[in-house]
Amino acid sequence: MQVPGPSVREAASMYGTAVAVFLVILVAALQGSAPAESPFPFHIPLDPEGTLELSWNVSYAQETVYFQLLVRELKAGVLFGMSDRGELENADLVVLWTDRDGAYFGDAWSDQKGQVHLDSQQDYQLLRAQRTPEGLYLLFKRPFGTCDPNDYLIEDGTVHLVYGLLEEPLQSLEAINTSSLHTGLQRVQLLKPNISQPALPADTHTMEIRAPDVLIPGQVTTYWCHITELPDGFPRHHIVMYEPIVTEGNEALVHHMEVFQCAAEVESVPHFSGPCDSKMKPERLNYCRHVLAAWALGAKAFYYPEEAGLAFGGPGSSRFLRLEVHYHNPLVIRGRRDSSGIRLYYTAALRRFDAGIMELGLAYTPVMAIPPQETAFVLTGYCTDKCTQLALPPSGIHIFASQLHTHLTGRKVVTVLARDGREREIVNRDSHYSPHFQEIRMLKKVVSVHPGDVLITSCTYNTEDRRLATVGGFGILEEMCVNYVHYYPQTQLELCKSAADPGFLQKYFHLVNRFNSEEVCTCPQASVPEQFASVPWNSFSRDVLKALYGFAPISVHCNKSSAVRFQGEWNRQPLPEIVSRLGEPTPHCPASRAQSPAGPTVLSIGGGKG
Amino acid sequence: MQVPGPSVREAASMYGTAVAVFLVILVAALQGSAPAESPFPFHIPLDPEGTLELSWNVSYAQETVYFQLLVRELKAGVLFGMSDRGELENADLVVLWTDRDGAYFGDAWSDQKGQVHLDSQQDYQLLRAQRTPEGLYLLFKRPFGTCDPNDYLIEDGTVHLVYGLLEEPLQSLEAINTSSLHTGLQRVQLLKPNISQPALPADTHTMEIRAPDVLIPGQVTTYWCHITELPDGFPRHHIVMYEPIVTEGNEALVHHMEVFQCAAEVESVPHFSGPCDSKMKPERLNYCRHVLAAWALGAKAFYYPEEAGLAFGGPGSSRFLRLEVHYHNPLVIRGRRDSSGIRLYYTAALRRFDAGIMELGLAYTPVMAIPPQETAFVLTGYCTDKCTQLALPPSGIHIFASQLHTHLTGRKVVTVLARDGREREIVNRDSHYSPHFQEIRMLKKVVSVHPGDVLITSCTYNTEDRRLATVGGFGILEEMCVNYVHYYPQTQLELCKSAADPGFLQKYFHLVNRFNSEEVCTCPQASVPEQFASVPWNSFSRDVLKALYGFAPISVHCNKSSAVRFQGEWNRQPLPEIVSRLGEPTPHCPASRAQSPAGPTVLSIGGGKG
Repeated sequence: MQVPGPSVREAASMYGTAVAVFLVILVAALQGSAPAESPFPFHIPLDPEGTLELSWNVSYAQETVYFQLLVRELKAGVLFGMSDRGELENADLVVLWTDRDGAYFGDAWSDQKGQVHLDSQQDYQLLRAQRTPEGLYLLFKRPFGTCDPNDYLIEDGTVHLVYGLLEEPLQSLEAINTSSLHTGLQRVQLLKPNISQPALPADTHTMEIRAPDVLIPGQVTTYWCHITELPDGFPRHHIVMYEPIVTEGNEALVHHMEVFQCAAEVESVPHFSGPCDSKMKPERLNYCRHVLAAWALGAKAFYYPEEAGLAFGGPGSSRFLRLEVHYHNPLVIRGRRDSSGIRLYYTAALRRFDAGIMELGLAYTPVMAIPPQETAFVLTGYCTDKCTQLALPPSGIHIFASQLHTHLTGRKVVTVLARDGREREIVNRDSHYSPHFQEIRMLKKVVSVHPGDVLITSCTYNTEDRRLATVGGFGILEEMCVNYVHYYPQTQLELCKSAADPGFLQKYFHLVNRFNSEEVCTCPQASVPEQFASVPWNSFSRDVLKALYGFAPISVHCNKSSAVRFQGEWNRQPLPEIVSRLGEPTPHCPASRAQSPAGPTVLSIGGGKG
Repeated sequence: MQVPGPSVREAASMYGTAVAVFLVILVAALQGSAPAESPFPFHIPLDPEGTLELSWNVSYAQETVYFQLLVRELKAGVLFGMSDRGELENADLVVLWTDRDGAYFGDAWSDQKGQVHLDSQQDYQLLRAQRTPEGLYLLFKRPFGTCDPNDYLIEDGTVHLVYGLLEEPLQSLEAINTSSLHTGLQRVQLLKPNISQPALPADTHTMEIRAPDVLIPGQVTTYWCHITELPDGFPRHHIVMYEPIVTEGNEALVHHMEVFQCAAEVESVPHFSGPCDSKMKPERLNYCRHVLAAWALGAKAFYYPEEAGLAFGGPGSSRFLRLEVHYHNPLVIRGRRDSSGIRLYYTAALRRFDAGIMELGLAYTPVMAIPPQETAFVLTGYCTDKCTQLALPPSGIHIFASQLHTHLTGRKVVTVLARDGREREIVNRDSHYSPHFQEIRMLKKVVSVHPGDVLITSCTYNTEDRRLATVGGFGILEEMCVNYVHYYPQTQLELCKSAADPGFLQKYFHLVNRFNSEEVCTCPQASVPEQFASVPWNSFSRDVLKALYGFAPISVHCNKSSAVRFQGEWNRQPLPEIVSRLGEPTPHCPASRAQSPAGPTVLSIGGGKG
């Protein structure tokens, strides 16, 4: 039956009201309760209109996430959930829906075609539903892992949240057609670390680095660059904390912000304020790359550990700072003004240790490349025992935060610490990494690195949409594999990375030429990117490239600042030998599901025919 | 406290009696029941002394195995379970044990050190315990899959059963030291197919092929060869069924038996009866290799499908048969006599179709090799679309049984049918294959192969104990990868196998030489086994060999009997391209564990202090 347009809207809104009314009645019988103190410390808008707002809290003791979803204009229901990379296929969902008789809340999942099914095991558990003038609040919880093969495993690192709005009542959950819904995704770190905030020193001052009164451009993606400077003669201070300042109403538009310090060598930097890709942007802004602070959507304030701070100001450092704001404006809203930025908390009473930032992973060289059409190709960079032996103090360093970085094809990043040939500890792992969501993340547990330890950083890439090999390099279409680790006490070691030996790569090209005996030639007089571009990609050339990267000796970049290597022989170094690996993370399955309902929770039958 | 020797025995036997007495009392409260008809059709002795005897039945509807374990001389308890290859480490166990106060039955598991732990999830469920003059009967059940990571997944194919006898009472399960127990393993196909037995024709006759009154040698392993012959002028018949005849009392010694027909070309074969490796064995026995019947421990009668029978007798076939009996005598019992063999059921009223046997997998050539020190190296042989197109009738053939074959390092075997580049169906899979347990197995479901289909047979090998590469070939220290499939209607195609192109293997040797630039030379004037013997095995040469086998074109052996190839070009054929693979089997998790006990079942507290 085809219902004319306006009536559908009316009907939907009527059902919306009905659901809301019935929801008020329920509640009492639902079991469980949220943690007591500050029940939902974390917040994020889900959709750009701000219709859906998620708050959450994490109980590490219960290994459970408590969610509070605010639905501002409920029509016939809502879908919320998680999936590998934000697709609505193969998603783990919770659905609030109405048929003509009642409203239901249930754990569901979508198959690879996006078809929604009720889950035979109900692991999302409704705790409360409450109607307020703002909208409907749904409070529910989910264990990190459920051991249900249809469920998403909530891990450290990025989680891709998905949502969808149901406009009309449904006869059943199976009737949902995800492709016709208003849906979207939001990236967030759900499992925020449970770290107590160190007290701020008494003499803490603040400084706001903001781009004032920016007219947000009417385009989906804008990187806004704004230059500001420290006061003349500003002495050396320690940054001990920073937090975002987001202009009210723009919470869904301000995607991430970073404050960079310019290079000391650059005497003065023009006071530019405009899109970073503008033709008007002065060349000298490219020398402002030293990270002082970074924030991304969903992150809260960043606290340095009590014993350390990030030095800025004083002689030998630039007075010029560059603020970069990424506006994400998918609805192409025009005329919106914004003055967001970052508030630095700093002290003149320097803390015991300077904090430092060290770059781990792959050197920026085309020697490390990913064949085209790969779904999960792994490249690995090493910080070797020889380098840590030389560069780290005897008592070691302490890594307390990490920011992962790749270009567009990066899908996973992990850094592992190995000692005496055995992997010991994960420094940071993101199995749902997105290049569009690069936060500085506090580690759940500080990782101490001693002289002689090895740090192994692996990135997994997806090049399904590429026609040619993707080589390492600075370009946005080239790739990187980097973990910026934040640590103390600061050392001279700024960069500890590697790449396969270029001579072995030439052996590879030679071998592929001979083996395929085709008309192509990946000849030595060509550049490495050109050689890669003429490799005939078949299962053999792909597998042998993997074998090469797993075998060839490496060039190690064990560098002080300004790209000066520590003294020693760093070419043709042996690949670190790892005799025992850490396994994949295995979820704890909830011991008993006795308290979980067997089917969806009926929210109301009021007004029904029964 | 050290108790002197004899008292231990007395105490143990006392507790044994106590347990048995208490067990009689219990029962009533235990829930569940076994399937009604013929409750335990399958039987196998577990230990060579015959102390433990297992009977079982399979409910495919419930996806559950019902076990009945008879313990003839119970002392302080018994361990029974399953593990990957029959180790007592990483085993999934059920344990009956006694402390000073009572007797307990519980689901347990052993870790990689063999330490036994009570399982937090009790998936073995005790149904009945009953004392009889024969011994104690324990009846219990287990779902095929439990989704408990500590549990074994019961799959088609070989299952390695393990057992252990507890001699003394224990304070707790954790006190069990598996390394000091009397333990052992037994291989069996637990998930017997659920096929109704076709009725035998009215004119069925039987013929017993037995080696009469053999004095079983006092050594662990004996293959006994016995030649017999069909009556003079015996016309063509169809074998429609066969079954084992095992001499009473020798059930644990007779491991497997096969009846072979000699080649028609050999005019007469001497009536030898003796060990197959005897120096007295006439050379001509080597021409008796055409399988007529095969039985292994735990197997029951083998029925041909109603519409087919295996032809024997008549012109063009040899009158001579060779019976091979494998005696497995681990306790080196001496003086035991045996007259076991196989009873053939045959009919002169020939059935509609002749059954045939076709050999799939790898050609016997050293080109296919496994590097040393590999834990799971896979080699794959193809029966290509071109061969099936040429050799199979338009209506296809129907595979109803399969016998897998490798030499000593084989660990898994699987044959998959692919059509139009997509894997469609498993023909036969054994993920716990043992070269010591090669049964002909009826398929659960007949697999039809059409012209143009591809049959892919993969074997997984473990060469951890080898110092040099293991090459393909006939020798016991060389390897094979074969699936003998039993099918109808018989065709001319007797062998459909493949191996990598030898020219590409030479490219591989060349490449490995160049790449390693070591003093070794895997030079073309050497034989392939010699070339493999001088490969420097490192991660690169291993990975590139894998890459080669996954890429190089193949030589296809598409042969009629007597090694005559079908007409056509069979060298340098492209590897079949497979665009979609069948996934790993995933277990159904039992929907609810509500009825499972949370801890061990207490069998008795009688006589305790409480």
